[in-house]
Amino acid sequence: MPLLKSWVESANAPDGQFPLNNLPYGVFSTENGPRRCGVAVGDSILDVTALEERGYLNVCETRVFAAPSWNAFMSLGPETWRRFRSHLQAVLGARAAQADRDVCFNALVPQADATMHLPVEIRGYADFYGCKNHAINVGTMFRGPENALPSNYLHLPIAYNGRASSIVVSGTDIRRPWGQLKDPGGAPPRFAPSERFDFELELGAIVGQPSKFGKPVTVAEAETMIFGYVLLNDWSARDIQTWEYQPLGPFQSKATANTISPWIVTSLALQPFRTSTQPREVQLLPHLQEPLPMLFDIDLEVLMLPSGAGEPLPVARTNYKEMYYSAPQNLAHHTTSGCPVEVGDMLGSGTISGTEPGSRGSLVELSWGGKEPVGLNGVGTRSFIEDNDTIIMRGASRGDGYLVGFGECVGKVLPAYADPYARDEVL
Amino acid sequence: MPLLKSWVESANAPDGQFPLNNLPYGVFSTENGPRRCGVAVGDSILDVTALEERGYLNVCETRVFAAPSWNAFMSLGPETWRRFRSHLQAVLGARAAQADRDVCFNALVPQADATMHLPVEIRGYADFYGCKNHAINVGTMFRGPENALPSNYLHLPIAYNGRASSIVVSGTDIRRPWGQLKDPGGAPPRFAPSERFDFELELGAIVGQPSKFGKPVTVAEAETMIFGYVLLNDWSARDIQTWEYQPLGPFQSKATANTISPWIVTSLALQPFRTSTQPREVQLLPHLQEPLPMLFDIDLEVLMLPSGAGEPLPVARTNYKEMYYSAPQNLAHHTTSGCPVEVGDMLGSGTISGTEPGSRGSLVELSWGGKEPVGLNGVGTRSFIEDNDTIIMRGASRGDGYLVGFGECVGKVLPAYADPYARDEVL
Repeated sequence: MPLLKSWVESANAPDGQFPLNNLPYGVFSTENGPRRCGVAVGDSILDVTALEERGYLNVCETRVFAAPSWNAFMSLGPETWRRFRSHLQAVLGARAAQADRDVCFNALVPQADATMHLPVEIRGYADFYGCKNHAINVGTMFRGPENALPSNYLHLPIAYNGRASSIVVSGTDIRRPWGQLKDPGGAPPRFAPSERFDFELELGAIVGQPSKFGKPVTVAEAETMIFGYVLLNDWSARDIQTWEYQPLGPFQSKATANTISPWIVTSLALQPFRTSTQPREVQLLPHLQEPLPMLFDIDLEVLMLPSGAGEPLPVARTNYKEMYYSAPQNLAHHTTSGCPVEVGDMLGSGTISGTEPGSRGSLVELSWGGKEPVGLNGVGTRSFIEDNDTIIMRGASRGDGYLVGFGECVGKVLPAYADPYARDEVL
Repeated sequence: MPLLKSWVESANAPDGQFPLNNLPYGVFSTENGPRRCGVAVGDSILDVTALEERGYLNVCETRVFAAPSWNAFMSLGPETWRRFRSHLQAVLGARAAQADRDVCFNALVPQADATMHLPVEIRGYADFYGCKNHAINVGTMFRGPENALPSNYLHLPIAYNGRASSIVVSGTDIRRPWGQLKDPGGAPPRFAPSERFDFELELGAIVGQPSKFGKPVTVAEAETMIFGYVLLNDWSARDIQTWEYQPLGPFQSKATANTISPWIVTSLALQPFRTSTQPREVQLLPHLQEPLPMLFDIDLEVLMLPSGAGEPLPVARTNYKEMYYSAPQNLAHHTTSGCPVEVGDMLGSGTISGTEPGSRGSLVELSWGGKEPVGLNGVGTRSFIEDNDTIIMRGASRGDGYLVGFGECVGKVLPAYADPYARDEVL
């Protein structure tokens, strides 16, 4: 499929993130105005809340863009998702009728004037471990090379439930956490700021349809339930994690924050980029097998902007096709026990790492547990994140003369509070 | 404190669950009517949604009982919680003015006519592992006696995040889950109904006040944030758990369902029953120390009603004072990383087990992994739950001539679906 031309000229730039082929969904505000639902097109946002208010672009009998989230729209289901997207492509397309152009033109807001917010009200959040390259790297460091890959790894998508409450939108500052740390040897644990604070490059799948209490869904059904994807930085305190994670898994080490990019790139926009999961050593049980390729070819990169540096420095570069399990497989597994998923649930992919050193999606892998600090193009090295470092993630699928871009997922790490229990400062 | 006498005569019965000293909060409906907020008093429910509609019992400027959950009320904070409870005790008390009696009398609904629902909209759900007796028992079975207690156990409250979406109210039938099972030996895993489905006797602490993103709370602050407690049955598929739980903790094994009792017994009602956590081997770090006793003396029991049996048979009897960590300690730990908690979060205590065999809070402990089946008073034995078994949990604190009762937490286990992916049946 070639570039779909739009009368919004900036949407036709060959290296732009948001052509008509993309049309990702977000929530934005301008100045001190209310939050509204919007669609990114070129360097603008189409204010669909305003259009709905004006009786244009109505997708159902009741208003779905009145609340500042895409949950109500998602709950309408895949047929509506498709119809709405086609309609947007028609009225924003180069051959749109003048009346449609006029209405839409008046609802365009420059992205430069907008503040972005969480695009959905996130309900449950499960974080998977679906990239085998990452599992081998981290497993080797945590448990040694003999026990690197858990014996269940090749048979099911491993996951833990995370905290929906600590998911924040790109641009939110992240405060370095305190936690219980245990140094090697016999010394007792201590309570201190994390010294091994890390990022994890992931993709988050946004669930747009619910499942029933007690009823698992197939992989094929699961795929139809996934509304779209965001970039996800699963901030991780490695030292807290090492001490706390046995026997019930990570808890506070993963609870400080998860940053997501503001634009949901829809599953529909990603269709041209389908690709397969990595080759398997053993066949999966039937209920986890993919009937067709369900990954997407998405180039991903991580950059770091240390305090005072002029521009972000590349740290890692990989691709979503490195995954061993796809989001539909994760979602199907998530429901095997009868666990109901809800509209607005998010599934993290797990850290995405390639096999080459520069393609690893976390600092603990890139610096091999701190033993091989990562060079920052002459402005220092990093074993873990330092105070005031900004982490930037980017992603895009490359079409024939166009991109389907994810925008950016950005977070700056602020120094830990001197006393996290002090109550005199402004909260 | 003696029994507080009420003009609602059934509230004065010496063995009643719901005297004026208790006044737990729930959500109920009658026939096909809407869900409403109610307060249990004797064998009746005071319909506070109706009272608020009539302009009586207003607790703030806006309506807080219009939605069928206690979340809006909880968000008003501890001072309002105290004021409202005192007001209820006055207008329901033996010396209430006739006008108050008349208004309240007209808002009383027999519990026998009511269907109970979830009392709160549960946001996040974390399940702790705070009873050392249980941790030793399960650890011994899963990892052997040498590795029974993880090295971190004495230093912090271990927990994992569970699924809020699968929390159901007492009386909801539970469908035996399917899952991936791995038999000992070299055979590959298989997908089948769980053969080791279990209950776990816990107490759930309902969080009534939020914490801030990035800011931990002290144990003392945490205590003021806990609105009340419910009985909690954390249904657990032991065979799914054994295969899946490394390295990221339990996931599908704990996601089928969690059943809670319908009445939130408030922290205020439990004040006369304060008691200390179990003796410690090592001192906790300061941020986890309790400034005063924060557990409660609550007698707990589990009964089983096999299909066709005439009456429930006692299976276990223990007390909440067996805990090694209290709910305020759990909540404080939950925020150490800066993780924000929300109004409506629930914290599971972890399975509550005493040191005696008959005081263990799960079948896997009672039957020691199936090796010592539990006798059911002549009507068979149980290693794990069988189809159509009903599990009943009860709890009460014993005051001077009165009880503060939790009511019951009940769930019947239905046979697994023959084919969980069949779509012909009515969902």
